Amino acid sequence: MPLDLDAKKTVLRQFSYGLYAVTAEHDGERGIFTVNWLSQVSFDPPMVAVSVERDSSTLPLIQASGRLAICPFTADQRDLAAGLGRPRSRAGDKFVTLDLPTIATAAGPPALANALGYVVCEVRQEVSAGDSIVLLTEVIEAHVLDDGLPLVMRDAGFRHAG
Amino acid sequence: MPLDLDAKKTVLRQFSYGLYAVTAEHDGERGIFTVNWLSQVSFDPPMVAVSVERDSSTLPLIQASGRLAICPFTADQRDLAAGLGRPRSRAGDKFVTLDLPTIATAAGPPALANALGYVVCEVRQEVSAGDSIVLLTEVIEAHVLDDGLPLVMRDAGFRHAG
Repeated sequence: MPLDLDAKKTVLRQFSYGLYAVTAEHDGERGIFTVNWLSQVSFDPPMVAVSVERDSSTLPLIQASGRLAICPFTADQRDLAAGLGRPRSRAGDKFVTLDLPTIATAAGPPALANALGYVVCEVRQEVSAGDSIVLLTEVIEAHVLDDGLPLVMRDAGFRHAG
Repeated sequence: MPLDLDAKKTVLRQFSYGLYAVTAEHDGERGIFTVNWLSQVSFDPPMVAVSVERDSSTLPLIQASGRLAICPFTADQRDLAAGLGRPRSRAGDKFVTLDLPTIATAAGPPALANALGYVVCEVRQEVSAGDSIVLLTEVIEAHVLDDGLPLVMRDAGFRHAG
């Protein structure tokens, strides 16, 4: 039986997501973009899986450094999440063009200073998954910045699923 | 620098999740349990990653059949999601003990008839991730059952993260 593409899209959009800034840095080059396809996948050790599109300009920085930072957006950062979703080819170095406040991490890339917090993760395995790469990572550093509520995709009105 | 375990737990709990029933069937044996650690990971082909704890009694049914169904809970199914989170060793065959209404799928296991809908997924790859197994699956069947809102973990008050 062929897959019902309308039903596939509708059910996959019934899934719920948060929104996060993901950063990476290698050899002085920095990247930052908006991600919703991620999930914790293990308690011990603490691991997070992140799906990144193959044409992401930040992916090579993650692969070269072996690290990324995940910064959950605060509930009022919808416009920032939209701005960080634009590709580097059009938006340039978003740290500069969006004048992003950053905080240095001990283990890796700069984190977004006005997010809820951050975890720095080390890539343990890369797995090919269709048009994307799934990075299986282990949390090696964590810092809390804000005790507010996170931005969720349904409230933001984004539809990156389906 | 050692990982700050309190900060790690707090930031990982800033992540946002939906809640889903996952089902599997093999040789007449059925399993159903509550999952929050999942995400779409590819548009083309449509793929979903699901993290399952190694001691899940449904995991062997998924592995033997190569398939699972994902059924997003409706916003009012909190108690059902809690009930389906109990292990089979204590709850027995939850299809029977909880008198679950099911709907037959063409490709695989029975789905939950009163969920928002379901996707049936075929396992393409299994990856070990700490205390869990990440199943990379491809959506092969989809059906919409309800146009309501999904149950999200924050509203349910569950804390399966950190």
